[in-house]
Amino acid sequence: MKLKLLFSCLISAGIALPVIAQETVNPAAVQKIREEGLNHSKVMETAFYLTDVSGPRLANSPGLRRAQNWAVNQLKTWGLVNAKLEPWGTFGKGWEVQKNYAAITVPYYHAIIAIPKAWTPGTNGLIKGDVVVVKADSAIDLDKYKGKLQGKIVIFDVKPLVERTLKPDAIRYTDEELAEMANATPQPQAAPADINSPQFAAIRKARAFQTALRSFVYDEKAALILSQARGTDGTVFTTNGASYADTAKAVAPELETSSEDYQRILRLAKGGQKVEMEADIKTQFLTDDLQGYDVVAEIPGTDKKLKEQVVMIGGHLDSWHAATGATDNAAGSAVMMEAVRILKAINFKPKRTIRIALWSSEEQGLFGSKGYVLNHFGDPKTMQLKPEQAKLSAYYNLDNGTGKIRGIYLQGDSAVAPIFKKWQEPFNDLGATTLTIRNTGGTDHLSFDAVGIPGFQFIQDPIDYSSRTHHSNQDTYDRLIEDDLKQAATIVASFVYNTSERAEMIPRKELPKAQPAK
Amino acid sequence: MKLKLLFSCLISAGIALPVIAQETVNPAAVQKIREEGLNHSKVMETAFYLTDVSGPRLANSPGLRRAQNWAVNQLKTWGLVNAKLEPWGTFGKGWEVQKNYAAITVPYYHAIIAIPKAWTPGTNGLIKGDVVVVKADSAIDLDKYKGKLQGKIVIFDVKPLVERTLKPDAIRYTDEELAEMANATPQPQAAPADINSPQFAAIRKARAFQTALRSFVYDEKAALILSQARGTDGTVFTTNGASYADTAKAVAPELETSSEDYQRILRLAKGGQKVEMEADIKTQFLTDDLQGYDVVAEIPGTDKKLKEQVVMIGGHLDSWHAATGATDNAAGSAVMMEAVRILKAINFKPKRTIRIALWSSEEQGLFGSKGYVLNHFGDPKTMQLKPEQAKLSAYYNLDNGTGKIRGIYLQGDSAVAPIFKKWQEPFNDLGATTLTIRNTGGTDHLSFDAVGIPGFQFIQDPIDYSSRTHHSNQDTYDRLIEDDLKQAATIVASFVYNTSERAEMIPRKELPKAQPAK
Repeated sequence: MKLKLLFSCLISAGIALPVIAQETVNPAAVQKIREEGLNHSKVMETAFYLTDVSGPRLANSPGLRRAQNWAVNQLKTWGLVNAKLEPWGTFGKGWEVQKNYAAITVPYYHAIIAIPKAWTPGTNGLIKGDVVVVKADSAIDLDKYKGKLQGKIVIFDVKPLVERTLKPDAIRYTDEELAEMANATPQPQAAPADINSPQFAAIRKARAFQTALRSFVYDEKAALILSQARGTDGTVFTTNGASYADTAKAVAPELETSSEDYQRILRLAKGGQKVEMEADIKTQFLTDDLQGYDVVAEIPGTDKKLKEQVVMIGGHLDSWHAATGATDNAAGSAVMMEAVRILKAINFKPKRTIRIALWSSEEQGLFGSKGYVLNHFGDPKTMQLKPEQAKLSAYYNLDNGTGKIRGIYLQGDSAVAPIFKKWQEPFNDLGATTLTIRNTGGTDHLSFDAVGIPGFQFIQDPIDYSSRTHHSNQDTYDRLIEDDLKQAATIVASFVYNTSERAEMIPRKELPKAQPAK
Repeated sequence: MKLKLLFSCLISAGIALPVIAQETVNPAAVQKIREEGLNHSKVMETAFYLTDVSGPRLANSPGLRRAQNWAVNQLKTWGLVNAKLEPWGTFGKGWEVQKNYAAITVPYYHAIIAIPKAWTPGTNGLIKGDVVVVKADSAIDLDKYKGKLQGKIVIFDVKPLVERTLKPDAIRYTDEELAEMANATPQPQAAPADINSPQFAAIRKARAFQTALRSFVYDEKAALILSQARGTDGTVFTTNGASYADTAKAVAPELETSSEDYQRILRLAKGGQKVEMEADIKTQFLTDDLQGYDVVAEIPGTDKKLKEQVVMIGGHLDSWHAATGATDNAAGSAVMMEAVRILKAINFKPKRTIRIALWSSEEQGLFGSKGYVLNHFGDPKTMQLKPEQAKLSAYYNLDNGTGKIRGIYLQGDSAVAPIFKKWQEPFNDLGATTLTIRNTGGTDHLSFDAVGIPGFQFIQDPIDYSSRTHHSNQDTYDRLIEDDLKQAATIVASFVYNTSERAEMIPRKELPKAQPAK
């Protein structure tokens, strides 16, 4: 422990480390990896199959299945072994859109931009109806709509979300921002959220009302609900959708509607104009297989002693459904696949076993990686660990869009700082320069971190992830930046190489405490 | 002439003018106009009716007719006289979209964002077909597609237009940019374009081929054409469409397709994947009245000598069809309507007659204003002038989006500089500060300038006109900035007041020479 404290103090102070066991990299290996990754890349071809060819990859959808099957076959073709779909647990129903059409017809014709909310039903053929504005903040407000919504198209009286901004959509990290990250102090252990605080109570109350509102509208037999989607200019950000549970209650058809179309309909209706619409939405729920699956494959280790140890990389393959989840997260999936392709292409015979996993149902709560961790490594609720937990050196994740790697989040594991600093040096010229002690959240490395396995997400340039692509109808192949993906795959391959070849496993933080279910 | 030269030298040098006849403004009038325009504005309500309620206002469409009739009635309600639709000449057919649905069905379902090209026919019900990629740069390339396109959905092999940028969408003029405009030197007389130059020849050749290409596809009985629209993120910029002439040849149905959807279909088809689509497009051509009409109304002059002289303001009311032409040009139309409303509301009894005109078919070539000028003032081809030409003091135009007024283009008429400088002073605080000797083009003041009548367009902040709204499916009411429109209406009302009340007409440039038809 003292050594770790010493290291982190010295890192922060910018002082060269006293050498006890100096980390080394193999320059010849780095060169081979760079040559293959930067000059013979297949990452865009992989991305093409995961996005354009597969279609939307919502959890347990036919599109995800197509992508998973393609990935398993492709990994086999590249020479990986044990490539398969591994069940992680029960997920729930699949779902896909099979027809999506809606338009204003009165006062005049206008086809709208809108996306069926995930896991909602269709309209059972073409429906036509009057638009009714529902203004309600609590259950009492709903009484006046009783008996008035049958066959109607319901819209809620909410303010515009249209954000007018003079800022650009797409950004790369500046040197100042990277320096700030590098100089960040370790984050204090987050206090567990106080679920009894007024803020939480307000959120729970708001959520409960939204559910009650939709329940009411469904019971009143409305034909269709329009909800306002975040986004402008034709970009529609979808939400987490309705329930995918096997036993989910029935809900009304719902269109997450572009803000411009939504506000036009609302202004007209509130302005006393009669508004009629038509819609023909068809969706399908799939219940033949409620299991969730992860794609897994390996490059077997060759060292007598070390081959039972494992290096893992991964990212989630599932996406949202309005486009083809290109930056979230075909980008990460394609990069990780490309990383193992690079290592096979240079004929790498690793000491440790290398394993790639492409998770599903990350979007619903990191379920694919959590399930995998539970099945293989341990239970974060009880911290009952399995033998494999002691053998996984590290897990590397990519899930922050198409932007190239600028560095890595150390996730509070200060002892890895000198190691990663050394490993990153050969790629400083490609913009990967930064180490930050800080954590980052919201994706699958957390599942590993929760059971004491070193799990890392790279720092990536944001590009237009938040502003345009994350969970939107604009998350398409066009948003992928080839040079960035090639750079990322090259760096990941090199980190995997080093993790496999170094004498010791990656140093670990203290084991987390058990986190009983909230 | 010498006086004008003297004035412009002194303006450029920033030297105070020697007073011969000092321009004055009436501070009490300015105050009343500001009070009404800034604090009691109806501009957004007007804009609501011109956009949301009327719908798309394509030349001679039902939407334009609705807006024109509403405008005539509203102007009457505000107390203007002689409010009417005045025919300007023969335009051609009206057109509107009555159904717009298209989707990829194979390899999976995906509804696309696409707009029927103006003045193209529908599909006659739901059609389904294979997508075929046509790669052709000249007529010879077309031979291989003979007999292969019947019932197909044709897409052209063209590069992506997707522009990745780190610049913001929305901008206001900086002080530096305004200073540059103020310091600009007069533009030299533009040499007539050399229509025999290689560049023109290349353009003509490319256009001729596009026409031949579509002719071929139509003759080969393709079911539908997809063309790639400029724009990203769900924004679709439409083109000038097919011919609206009474005698126009029949063309194939065509969808101007969002670049992301277009490129996805193209990548799949070129990548050897079978792509099928379905579409149901219904459009209507209207031939009952081929005349074009301008909205005109007046506040009659009251001065015995001056009332036969006229001050005109205007802007075009017609729009493109993918949205509701809010910034192009409901903004200008609403501002001009609001300007005359302000003057009536403050009970202004002008010396000269004030006339407002809301043009149609500006988008097809300034036809509404050109026709009006031909009927009332003269023919720029021959410079045969009518008596009214001598009596119109000035024409003020607004057609550069929702952005507020930052100044005015003097259109080379240097003698007006000291006049407008004085008139603009009471609005310096609202950001209107700049005079530029330069011309600006592309809109209706040019029709007046062409027959020697002072015609002016104001300098407006661009906001996101070029980047998002001009001729796009995103040109909606949401893009209008209320404070900017209120400011513009206030300034226009004051300029009208001053033009009406000043002793002399606005000083004129030399008469242009006759411009025989090219």
